[in-house]
Amino acid sequence: MARTIGSHGPTTLEAIRKAGVRLIYENGYEAMSLRKLAAEVGIQAGSLYNHISTKQDLLFDLVQDHINDLLRELDLALAGKADPVEQLRAFVSFHVTYHMTRKREVFIANSELRSLEPKNYDAVVALRGAYEQRLAQILTDGVSDGVFEVVDIQVATFAILALLTGLCTWYRPGGRLTREAIIAAHEKLVLSGVGAAQAVTGEVRETGRLPHGAAAGARS
Amino acid sequence: MARTIGSHGPTTLEAIRKAGVRLIYENGYEAMSLRKLAAEVGIQAGSLYNHISTKQDLLFDLVQDHINDLLRELDLALAGKADPVEQLRAFVSFHVTYHMTRKREVFIANSELRSLEPKNYDAVVALRGAYEQRLAQILTDGVSDGVFEVVDIQVATFAILALLTGLCTWYRPGGRLTREAIIAAHEKLVLSGVGAAQAVTGEVRETGRLPHGAAAGARS
Repeated sequence: MARTIGSHGPTTLEAIRKAGVRLIYENGYEAMSLRKLAAEVGIQAGSLYNHISTKQDLLFDLVQDHINDLLRELDLALAGKADPVEQLRAFVSFHVTYHMTRKREVFIANSELRSLEPKNYDAVVALRGAYEQRLAQILTDGVSDGVFEVVDIQVATFAILALLTGLCTWYRPGGRLTREAIIAAHEKLVLSGVGAAQAVTGEVRETGRLPHGAAAGARS
Repeated sequence: MARTIGSHGPTTLEAIRKAGVRLIYENGYEAMSLRKLAAEVGIQAGSLYNHISTKQDLLFDLVQDHINDLLRELDLALAGKADPVEQLRAFVSFHVTYHMTRKREVFIANSELRSLEPKNYDAVVALRGAYEQRLAQILTDGVSDGVFEVVDIQVATFAILALLTGLCTWYRPGGRLTREAIIAAHEKLVLSGVGAAQAVTGEVRETGRLPHGAAAGARS
């Protein structure tokens, strides 16, 4: 089937990606058939190949684009911040906020690394390494400046990323806590965890509680 | 095929469970066929039903047994400890150690909740809730005693569990750090994170580094 350049190309591709994310999230990559994917989008199975090369390429693109988005937006969030404490606070706030809205992509990026072919796996691990390195560098700078106390930078990097990403398993919009309250709770854990307790905002530190009005929370 | 009570019953069941864990870990529950599972064990597909009722029951048993083991062993680890700081240290040490050896079971328990039928899902979420509640109670007691400073108990509980479980994604035996060094690094992050920095062991606190001889580390 010839590759067509039609006006609906990008729209169809976007629909394929969205359906792909949902199907992989719900059943896993191995269990997703291209026939089912096409049916979800409302096109013939053969027409998929006008938009994607293979199922593997679709998975790779989804995971790769997710991490590239993360990297690009993180660099915007960190821009202009030179102080490690400010950088770490910005990192926490960015990572938590981003992960509140990308639960499915995050799940796929974590659970379907197993399904990437070796070349694709290596590329994704390298990208993920670049993201981890941003956090590792902040921690390293904070230790150098004497404002952080960290036993092992690598373990702390992985542990903090896991802590922040864990949000994806329980966060639901409209729950007990506001976004700001959730960010503040994570900020306290991470900044205190690396020994920068004095850097946590006054309101949280003084009372040990969230400001009044932090409303009603969710775990579905 | 009639159900047989043979001397190899438990052995075969154990082989089925092990193969099931591996296949689900590698390809996902939906993609695991019972035919393939039987072939891995070296029995006829029909013979599976001498040992398990359904594929769903196998998944449920694997996940449920994993969390029941966790709960039972946690209670042993906490037995006789009344001080929240000691309890939290014991919780961290137990959870990290346990998760060093159960990477596949943990991955399945987290990634295949989606594949549990509603009744089974509810049972597993309740069991998981009981485990989470152990940690939440330790945090609550520590706040009451004035030794912990926690913004939100529920968020801190989920975040600390995610932090500790994150180990499964990178830990490999024989890496750069000893088990003890990895436990110490996690202990520092968690105890400091809840404001119990003064409770962290002197050696780690004073130097901010691991003892010399903490050897050579891994991420594959």
